[in-house]
Amino acid sequence: MSFSFLSHLECPRCHTQYDADTQAHFCTCGSPLLARYDLAAAREQFSKEMLQQREPSLWRYHELLPVRSPEHVVTLGEGMTPLLPLDRLGKKLDLNHLYVKDEGVIPTGSFKARGAAVGVSRAKELGVQVLAMPTNGNAGGAWATYSARAGLDAYVVMPEGAPLITRNECAISGAHLFLVNGLISDAGAIVGRAVKTHGWYDASTLKEPYRIEGKKTMGYELAEQFQWNVPDVILYPTGGGVGIIGIYKALRELQEMGWIGERLPRLVAVQATGCAPIVKAWQEGQDVSELWKGSSTIAFGINVPKALGDFLVLDAVRSTNGYALAVDDDELLHAQAELASNEGLFVCPEGAATLVAAHKLREQGWIKADERVVLLNTGSGIKYPNTVQVSVPLLQPQDELPVA
Amino acid sequence: MSFSFLSHLECPRCHTQYDADTQAHFCTCGSPLLARYDLAAAREQFSKEMLQQREPSLWRYHELLPVRSPEHVVTLGEGMTPLLPLDRLGKKLDLNHLYVKDEGVIPTGSFKARGAAVGVSRAKELGVQVLAMPTNGNAGGAWATYSARAGLDAYVVMPEGAPLITRNECAISGAHLFLVNGLISDAGAIVGRAVKTHGWYDASTLKEPYRIEGKKTMGYELAEQFQWNVPDVILYPTGGGVGIIGIYKALRELQEMGWIGERLPRLVAVQATGCAPIVKAWQEGQDVSELWKGSSTIAFGINVPKALGDFLVLDAVRSTNGYALAVDDDELLHAQAELASNEGLFVCPEGAATLVAAHKLREQGWIKADERVVLLNTGSGIKYPNTVQVSVPLLQPQDELPVA
Repeated sequence: MSFSFLSHLECPRCHTQYDADTQAHFCTCGSPLLARYDLAAAREQFSKEMLQQREPSLWRYHELLPVRSPEHVVTLGEGMTPLLPLDRLGKKLDLNHLYVKDEGVIPTGSFKARGAAVGVSRAKELGVQVLAMPTNGNAGGAWATYSARAGLDAYVVMPEGAPLITRNECAISGAHLFLVNGLISDAGAIVGRAVKTHGWYDASTLKEPYRIEGKKTMGYELAEQFQWNVPDVILYPTGGGVGIIGIYKALRELQEMGWIGERLPRLVAVQATGCAPIVKAWQEGQDVSELWKGSSTIAFGINVPKALGDFLVLDAVRSTNGYALAVDDDELLHAQAELASNEGLFVCPEGAATLVAAHKLREQGWIKADERVVLLNTGSGIKYPNTVQVSVPLLQPQDELPVA
Repeated sequence: MSFSFLSHLECPRCHTQYDADTQAHFCTCGSPLLARYDLAAAREQFSKEMLQQREPSLWRYHELLPVRSPEHVVTLGEGMTPLLPLDRLGKKLDLNHLYVKDEGVIPTGSFKARGAAVGVSRAKELGVQVLAMPTNGNAGGAWATYSARAGLDAYVVMPEGAPLITRNECAISGAHLFLVNGLISDAGAIVGRAVKTHGWYDASTLKEPYRIEGKKTMGYELAEQFQWNVPDVILYPTGGGVGIIGIYKALRELQEMGWIGERLPRLVAVQATGCAPIVKAWQEGQDVSELWKGSSTIAFGINVPKALGDFLVLDAVRSTNGYALAVDDDELLHAQAELASNEGLFVCPEGAATLVAAHKLREQGWIKADERVVLLNTGSGIKYPNTVQVSVPLLQPQDELPVA
């Protein structure tokens, strides 16, 4: 049997098809490309039961991933992250079935590892030797890491304000790292010029078709972890939007495979009020978003003023009868502390935003008390030391411990 | 069938037995206590095959863990961390089967999560409401986190020099956190006085018998990941030594279960030259270590001048024909960069020390080229930003990307 049922690349806008086995970045119409599989053949030869004996990584779904040969798989053991009930917070929010999928428990401490694992593996398989990308930090850390494991050369450009630890990840992995006095869009422009000049592989968000294939595995895992009876609502912190697009793509594929039924989870795009272009477009009934000027939020990973895949995010939200809403930085920092002190989950600020959103949507009745609701936490709080204010008493060795 | 085959507590020094179902800390002879199981009954009722359908967490081995009732399990999805081949570094070191077990991919980013998950679960089961502990940082972060999830009150005391991010973990989880102007031994003395005064549960290393039960699951997982044909050498960064004691205990239990054969891996205790009491005792043929004065190493987690379980570590090393050696801070920092740039693994400095040790032991012929060798990386490098020196060029938006 084939290791992968990858068939071709397709433009989600004009449906032009492209060969999947040469390096490809865009449709001639300007749209990103998506990987397509021979799902009819996969349905015949691949079954849920086959998964039971497989290792707990995203490669358990290799038939529906784009890497054709197992020897090209570049892995650090990523995937099958925990799905955890939040009973205490569920009670507070009047949600009887509240869960978090915790992408902090993954190499590099961020869901970006999924995209990097599959993206780098496939780049290596296609003969790439040098890749370049802009990043808000975590994707750069992940791609630098997986590039080192693959033996590829990586150029990474990130805003000065990106989380400090992601610099370390890039530097120690031997990537060529640069900061830019600007936003991720400025970093993207610099990378865009460089890939043209040097003929490098452009690994920017949605400028190659395989990062999303890694991220879609969050959707497969959620379906499997819910025993193929998918939850009712998934809340996702949305910057570039690849995660939510990927989950939607995964669910559609699982429908075609006959592994899940007609009903899909309602997908909720959560943004920060300081950078909410998708929310605005959704509210206004637009198919694409406008560049959000002067964007600012402490949840750095969702500070994306204009996402290339905005139209796909909006389609995913609308097609599932979902929702889009923005939350304040104050609210998400408060939610971060709530998750840690009530549930022992030290999540990233982006992930914390989804708790605020769940709270609001429950209050306005859009989510019902008995629905199964999943917060997607995209990374670990340990990468964001500055979001926690700590003032700790200093004792001398002879002191007694003060009691609270 | 029983959820747990826990039978009693036993003193590993004088073999006095104690009831496992009341709070217990020490033998009357002063030794730590170890949990014992009815392995004869377990052997009858529990099998390797039963594991295949279980979730990829350390709770898959619940029959051999001390929590009696599933409702007391406090989990964040910890365990079944990746076992990864290190082909590129293996070649450099002339080791044909070099692996790392990566405990960075676990809640809190450190193997301390294992001890905290099982220790807190059992404390909760035994009716504990307040616990206290000294820590070099990571254990405090883990116990604060799991205490929050369990609804317990935690007092944590750490040296001023402990990794900063571990302060955040404790603070945001709602633990009562204190720094001490001193070493972990000073923190331990403060905690010791406080637990006496207030009747709190002392969760210090080896002062309660269940933390080690969590850590031993590294041994179970390694055996299972090697299909019950255990590797030849395991190198372990050794501070308090609970990990290496736990792995040895696990392997002995698996032998009694008949799940592995007579041969055990040779266990190697790796320390820093600035704090190497176990190495000194091993070299001198002593059964216990002496307090290491003026201890200092950048690998903060193994800065333990005198381990309570030193005699158990020395027994584990000697009984398996193992080894004990120390490495310099310079060497381990270099190894940290080697692991990241060659294999994409950003490990903690403690974990990096094991690569140096493997290199030395291969050079002196103690490890053979064809042996299967496992480096135990105890945590993620992202918790230690100060071990990486980063100097990154700053670009302006209109700049071109310089090429290396």
